[in-house]
Amino acid sequence: MNAISTTSSKSMMLFSGRGYPELADEIGKELDVSVTGQDAYDFANGEIFVRFNESVRGSDAFLVQSCGADLNKWVMETLIMIDALKRASAKRITVVLPFYPYARQDKKHRGREPISARLVADLLKTAGAQRLMTVDLHTDQIQGFFDGPVDHLFAQKLLTDHIADRYSGDDLTVVSPDSGRVRTAERWADRLGGAPIAFIHKTRDPLKPNQVVANRVVGDVTGRTCIVVDDMIDTAGTVSKAVRQVLDEGATKVIVAATHGVLSDPAAERLATCGAVEVVLTNTLPIPPEHRFEQLTVLSIAPLIAQAIEQVFQDGSVTKLFEH
Amino acid sequence: MNAISTTSSKSMMLFSGRGYPELADEIGKELDVSVTGQDAYDFANGEIFVRFNESVRGSDAFLVQSCGADLNKWVMETLIMIDALKRASAKRITVVLPFYPYARQDKKHRGREPISARLVADLLKTAGAQRLMTVDLHTDQIQGFFDGPVDHLFAQKLLTDHIADRYSGDDLTVVSPDSGRVRTAERWADRLGGAPIAFIHKTRDPLKPNQVVANRVVGDVTGRTCIVVDDMIDTAGTVSKAVRQVLDEGATKVIVAATHGVLSDPAAERLATCGAVEVVLTNTLPIPPEHRFEQLTVLSIAPLIAQAIEQVFQDGSVTKLFEH
Amino acid sequence: MNAISTTSSKSMMLFSGRGYPELADEIGKELDVSVTGQDAYDFANGEIFVRFNESVRGSDAFLVQSCGADLNKWVMETLIMIDALKRASAKRITVVLPFYPYARQDKKHRGREPISARLVADLLKTAGAQRLMTVDLHTDQIQGFFDGPVDHLFAQKLLTDHIADRYSGDDLTVVSPDSGRVRTAERWADRLGGAPIAFIHKTRDPLKPNQVVANRVVGDVTGRTCIVVDDMIDTAGTVSKAVRQVLDEGATKVIVAATHGVLSDPAAERLATCGAVEVVLTNTLPIPPEHRFEQLTVLSIAPLIAQAIEQVFQDGSVTKLFEH
Amino acid sequence: MNAISTTSSKSMMLFSGRGYPELADEIGKELDVSVTGQDAYDFANGEIFVRFNESVRGSDAFLVQSCGADLNKWVMETLIMIDALKRASAKRITVVLPFYPYARQDKKHRGREPISARLVADLLKTAGAQRLMTVDLHTDQIQGFFDGPVDHLFAQKLLTDHIADRYSGDDLTVVSPDSGRVRTAERWADRLGGAPIAFIHKTRDPLKPNQVVANRVVGDVTGRTCIVVDDMIDTAGTVSKAVRQVLDEGATKVIVAATHGVLSDPAAERLATCGAVEVVLTNTLPIPPEHRFEQLTVLSIAPLIAQAIEQVFQDGSVTKLFEH
Amino acid sequence: MNAISTTSSKSMMLFSGRGYPELADEIGKELDVSVTGQDAYDFANGEIFVRFNESVRGSDAFLVQSCGADLNKWVMETLIMIDALKRASAKRITVVLPFYPYARQDKKHRGREPISARLVADLLKTAGAQRLMTVDLHTDQIQGFFDGPVDHLFAQKLLTDHIADRYSGDDLTVVSPDSGRVRTAERWADRLGGAPIAFIHKTRDPLKPNQVVANRVVGDVTGRTCIVVDDMIDTAGTVSKAVRQVLDEGATKVIVAATHGVLSDPAAERLATCGAVEVVLTNTLPIPPEHRFEQLTVLSIAPLIAQAIEQVFQDGSVTKLFEH
Amino acid sequence: MNAISTTSSKSMMLFSGRGYPELADEIGKELDVSVTGQDAYDFANGEIFVRFNESVRGSDAFLVQSCGADLNKWVMETLIMIDALKRASAKRITVVLPFYPYARQDKKHRGREPISARLVADLLKTAGAQRLMTVDLHTDQIQGFFDGPVDHLFAQKLLTDHIADRYSGDDLTVVSPDSGRVRTAERWADRLGGAPIAFIHKTRDPLKPNQVVANRVVGDVTGRTCIVVDDMIDTAGTVSKAVRQVLDEGATKVIVAATHGVLSDPAAERLATCGAVEVVLTNTLPIPPEHRFEQLTVLSIAPLIAQAIEQVFQDGSVTKLFEH
Repeated sequence: MNAISTTSSKSMMLFSGRGYPELADEIGKELDVSVTGQDAYDFANGEIFVRFNESVRGSDAFLVQSCGADLNKWVMETLIMIDALKRASAKRITVVLPFYPYARQDKKHRGREPISARLVADLLKTAGAQRLMTVDLHTDQIQGFFDGPVDHLFAQKLLTDHIADRYSGDDLTVVSPDSGRVRTAERWADRLGGAPIAFIHKTRDPLKPNQVVANRVVGDVTGRTCIVVDDMIDTAGTVSKAVRQVLDEGATKVIVAATHGVLSDPAAERLATCGAVEVVLTNTLPIPPEHRFEQLTVLSIAPLIAQAIEQVFQDGSVTKLFEH
Repeated sequence: MNAISTTSSKSMMLFSGRGYPELADEIGKELDVSVTGQDAYDFANGEIFVRFNESVRGSDAFLVQSCGADLNKWVMETLIMIDALKRASAKRITVVLPFYPYARQDKKHRGREPISARLVADLLKTAGAQRLMTVDLHTDQIQGFFDGPVDHLFAQKLLTDHIADRYSGDDLTVVSPDSGRVRTAERWADRLGGAPIAFIHKTRDPLKPNQVVANRVVGDVTGRTCIVVDDMIDTAGTVSKAVRQVLDEGATKVIVAATHGVLSDPAAERLATCGAVEVVLTNTLPIPPEHRFEQLTVLSIAPLIAQAIEQVFQDGSVTKLFEH
Repeated sequence: MNAISTTSSKSMMLFSGRGYPELADEIGKELDVSVTGQDAYDFANGEIFVRFNESVRGSDAFLVQSCGADLNKWVMETLIMIDALKRASAKRITVVLPFYPYARQDKKHRGREPISARLVADLLKTAGAQRLMTVDLHTDQIQGFFDGPVDHLFAQKLLTDHIADRYSGDDLTVVSPDSGRVRTAERWADRLGGAPIAFIHKTRDPLKPNQVVANRVVGDVTGRTCIVVDDMIDTAGTVSKAVRQVLDEGATKVIVAATHGVLSDPAAERLATCGAVEVVLTNTLPIPPEHRFEQLTVLSIAPLIAQAIEQVFQDGSVTKLFEH
Repeated sequence: MNAISTTSSKSMMLFSGRGYPELADEIGKELDVSVTGQDAYDFANGEIFVRFNESVRGSDAFLVQSCGADLNKWVMETLIMIDALKRASAKRITVVLPFYPYARQDKKHRGREPISARLVADLLKTAGAQRLMTVDLHTDQIQGFFDGPVDHLFAQKLLTDHIADRYSGDDLTVVSPDSGRVRTAERWADRLGGAPIAFIHKTRDPLKPNQVVANRVVGDVTGRTCIVVDDMIDTAGTVSKAVRQVLDEGATKVIVAATHGVLSDPAAERLATCGAVEVVLTNTLPIPPEHRFEQLTVLSIAPLIAQAIEQVFQDGSVTKLFEH
Repeated sequence: MNAISTTSSKSMMLFSGRGYPELADEIGKELDVSVTGQDAYDFANGEIFVRFNESVRGSDAFLVQSCGADLNKWVMETLIMIDALKRASAKRITVVLPFYPYARQDKKHRGREPISARLVADLLKTAGAQRLMTVDLHTDQIQGFFDGPVDHLFAQKLLTDHIADRYSGDDLTVVSPDSGRVRTAERWADRLGGAPIAFIHKTRDPLKPNQVVANRVVGDVTGRTCIVVDDMIDTAGTVSKAVRQVLDEGATKVIVAATHGVLSDPAAERLATCGAVEVVLTNTLPIPPEHRFEQLTVLSIAPLIAQAIEQVFQDGSVTKLFEH
Repeated sequence: MNAISTTSSKSMMLFSGRGYPELADEIGKELDVSVTGQDAYDFANGEIFVRFNESVRGSDAFLVQSCGADLNKWVMETLIMIDALKRASAKRITVVLPFYPYARQDKKHRGREPISARLVADLLKTAGAQRLMTVDLHTDQIQGFFDGPVDHLFAQKLLTDHIADRYSGDDLTVVSPDSGRVRTAERWADRLGGAPIAFIHKTRDPLKPNQVVANRVVGDVTGRTCIVVDDMIDTAGTVSKAVRQVLDEGATKVIVAATHGVLSDPAAERLATCGAVEVVLTNTLPIPPEHRFEQLTVLSIAPLIAQAIEQVFQDGSVTKLFEH
């Protein structure tokens, strides 16, 4: 016989870094597949070791990693896991990073800076990732940093549905906390039935660069229910100031909404005390108990990611998930 | 003798595509170096041929190309010239694209689209470009698309100095023609001594996506001299509407300012008749006589590019050119 | 469950650039598959935009582009479409270029020239093409420029069958219009039952390089039906001179045959008036009505390309298509 | 119809270089697939030509080459065959090198040396090999030289089973012939039920680098049946000296065991006369009749390689083949 | 003028990660050049930011990073700094990692493991490192993991000179703490005038893989001054057991010597109490006060690294530094 | 001090493979630089080892290798030497292959063949060669196979000067031995003052492909001094038949001229007895005494290569060497 032929099949396997295994488990439940078992631990000097407990040969591998606290560690673990999948002959490796690390360093603000968001894309590629899935990139252009297909998921519908539902009778105004997110606010306003928008304009001292001398609200917020929107909340400095300023200018009520709850200290305290009636986030990043507070609502991103993985595996359409 | 040693020297040579040779000549004059002679022509079927008239071996080559009308042709010519420089043993090839082509396609707006701005960066690299110099990218993130050093020049000082000089006593407001350029407007406002800013908010019909139902000016423009700013003006639809709306809302005077004058039809007519007292552009792209009109001011970008090339050749600092 | 398994299937999709959509349609009809719908248009400044109307995820994509007039535009469109296919997760991308652009610039004729045919191959690869299918390359070595599998199709049988059929009783001589195509003429002669061959020898003035002082026919053409053969006809200068010279030397009848009808002006006029009784071409390139003339016969290349695509998709043999 | 869909199948094909076709045939018999026919010969000046006799399009290709005498020729042939498979559209190319050539040059021993083992890995990759299968690498780190999955097979079980069976009642000691293989000896000792180990320590003259002044046996060998183990036996200088020394120190009986029988002259003579009662090798390399001698036992590696190929083709586990 | 020519010069600049800045300062002092100033800090969520305070354009950049505690963070910082150097147009980037991170994961010990040492080499290359300088790699083969020149420095002379000096009259035996370092021990023995060697042989239970049932000293240590040598000491488990065993078998005195003092807990305690009279390390890694103990001697590696940098910058020979 | 600056110098070093060291020596003499000393030998199993005797750091390295008999060995040696130069930090590596190996396999003649000439180019690049210098490629397109600058030297002037000088009064006709070299013959004819040309046409049996049934001389040779030209002479089958046929058709005298004297058996015998009055070759390949014969003239290529190396090193023009 000159050749042995057989029908070919494909097999999806799910892998999880140690950054936020609960999210991977939740995705696995949605997909009805369990996360592949592994031995993963740190050597005494911090070096990470990973080994999968069963054969991954020929699999369509989806590796979920959520880079919260100890971010550099989880980035390195992701790269190491990709390397292990590659060398163990996974057929296709899709890395799922609900929160894309170093997204804010997506350009040189001044000379002699890195573009770390591009670097991360290149590192993932070098390790062996063939595809990337992520949620609400800090800027859309980051898609173009990765040399391969990127499935860019949007949490906006998840968030606006929640807002539209809970604050249905209110006169809503969408507020961008700074001049760089006005376009995002406009997209929210469209989703919320054509709501007006406003933003906080920072005036800088021309003689002292980078020093803000005043914040002015541009647009009308008096007597309105304001939704302050952002892609991520890190220390919550900008967003909590925005809440206060909007309240000072006569807003009736303020809600904060963002996809990524980075919540570095003292974010939780700031958000709890800034005057917002609700802070809505998704769980693209783990939010530990000590960072939770009364006004916080966390929506799960797992169903959306599970649907997207399903479409990728079945050669369906991810685009359709975001069409009206 | 085991080795022949000699002091090494470096030599700058300037090359120009046929997209806008006058700009390369102007840069050459600033640098006191003439553009290297070449035979460049099109075959009957459109294929481009280029051959340099003198040896380029070992040179530090700077290739200037301005991609105006017939844009795809000039992109291909650029790639072919880079290939010829590479095969003729130029030591280092820096491509100088004052206007970066396909910059607006810097992300997938929806599924199944290309990211042509990344593609262009990869094509330049593949052809053999080691460095890229460009002016006012549509988004700063495009720097990260090129796998190598990018010298990103800013025309802002050139433009704001002109405005500050000519309208020194006026009450200036900086206006972004849409929600995506508010951050740019803020940077202009800082440069102009802390001027207030405004922007045009487009309200879309939530039932008919992508259909604008109303434009509202957010921010105060009544009785002010408004500067409508953008990175490029293509057909001038958005910017001329912005000028009219700002005048309707009581602005005293409107000036339009942008770096790149793409000026596709009917831009010249729109700009000439929209009510702006002045339209300020630079010559990163050729502006042919038939696209010029009374209110147009064109500032030359050549001195800035020449200074940057000088710094790159001499291992100086390009960053310093943009420090206060 | 540790993995979700399913039988894998493969799906062929056909795409077409705007250079010659009729050819793609014809190929589609042969294959019984329609060309995938897309939005493709030019921005005012010439930038090309392409978006596919349906999901291409996981598909075995064949992209047909024919680069006739406006050649550089179609090359760029091809690259952009490949980029869109790659980012939309097509499984495999085969670019089908019936006429390979820049094939004549396949070497440095002198120093400081590009090798544009290699450049084109590298650009296709960079954009994301994994395979290349093309017809009658100017030189066979161009196959080696592409870093991947190349399906090189030959139109010779199509052309010689036509000639053999129509001129079956004639005493045929195959004529190469210059010294560089004698090997091609020999291959034709073999196919036509061992016909004799001749060629036109250009004598150059040794003191004035590149200046032809005389053309001599080497080989015997008197009283013969001569087939002047070439791979492509661009301006038809060389070939129409060859026809005249062969007639001058006593040929009874002359037929011109070539695969690629580039037909740049004034090719149609030259061919119509040079004295050839028939000019046989294929439709690897579009031949617009204004370039058609009485003696012209155009044979369709679509069935051959369709068969080759079928073999590639079904893992059959393309080689077999060209065996006797 | 927008797309033609069909179930996809996969097909294994086996190819063999001319270095040791009998081994490939033996592997083929184990797998019940015959080696694909080919025309392979040398041009008069030594250039190698290879052409496969049937279509390999879409196949999962396994190319077996054994680089014995004329090693550089077989390396080049392997690269050329991979190139032919790639250009003929094989779907996946796994190169099976039972003996990895240049494995000993796996580091720079001193400055200005090549790392030829890495070079070989890069050459294989460049030619188009996507996977590598090999047996008992000189050092395990060579796996990391290849940029892709490596299936590293171990002959240890084959060898130790033979030893354990034939010398079951003896008091075994495992001996490393130099200080660099003690870890290997320890692994053998574990397999042989916890046997003690010993090694030969070479003392060098500190004033004359690289000059050995004395060999000492470290560990106890008196009255024991010693197994001198190594990964490969080239000229057998080291190993035959070790056998003699161990006998001198009172060993009862000595067996030599190694995976790779390079057996360059005068290895056969040395091994036949050194005093070893048996020399056990595998057939990863061809052992011609003139290099065979009375005490030689050659175990076939073909079943192991066939099992590994089967696992790779069927997406099974190669790791399992080596678990207890 | 057709070209501007000038004599070219080269300029060495020194950079330091934050892992162990004192070492870079020490190297700088040896070279008489100060470490280039930079802003380097962590964002609240752990993302690292680095910006150099002065132009690095055209420089021959040497970036020193020592990856001690928080190893993954320093690896990421190194990559980010390289990216910043590359984008800021450094002419050549040499990364100096006195301790190569993940060196122990230099092979797959079993299936489905990463080869992290190769991964690290690829990440460095991807970020933009063109050269690598490092000290005493865990295995020499790691040199071959990096695709470019590697300057591999050896601390052996530094350590053996110290030992030879301080224990000049003693009867020295060099001891490898396990079977994998016997070759290293042999090299030490050569340097110490032909001292005898010994090693600890771990016997494993054949029924329970990886479980050590007994340690035996192979070789003679009674009445000797034993030097237990290793490349690195992490938790000191193996080495402290080796010290005890050698003392149990009658050694007079034991010294421990290694290049890299990883010293993860409880290494310091184990080394202080194991019975060794001295523990000699170099400062390739920072050794914080809380990990220091009475018997510890730390030799500075800075002079050796400085000499090597000097040779690289001046196109001299690094090899010569290690010749007798 | 923030940086150490110094004037940079460059240093040419010459290296030679073992394929034909006399040629490298001759080139060295022309350049007044000696070939760098090295240890190069074969291990018993054929593996090649090379080590340079002095530092090559920072050098502009020119590596000359002539691949005659044992061609695959010399190709491998070339790759290994390049690897050693790269790892030893040569600044630039130019490989000088007077005869490009595998040049004839520059395309797929039929399906499932390699394109070995492209493979060789890629292997050289992968090993680390940055530039390639070669003489009279079999087809010019091979230049495009190498991804980098190629200095393609022409021996034509050397050969035609010799012919023009020695046969100055004769009526010369240039003869191509087959249909594929007619263009070359035409170039010779131009150089020789516009001589007429002829070629041998092989008629094949249409029913038995590849079987030649007759050779006919096309063009007039009666009473002429014929120069049969080719790029290389391997077994001399084609060329010696051509000589006989031209003599049969009445040529007065026949000279054979070619650049590369491969001269595999029985070339020498055939050439000596075919009737040619002189056979002119260059020494791009070694011609051992046993392959020399009375009518043979060997011209040295060393001066031409030396001039080209000088131009490359000094950033001069190689193109100028071939202008009239």
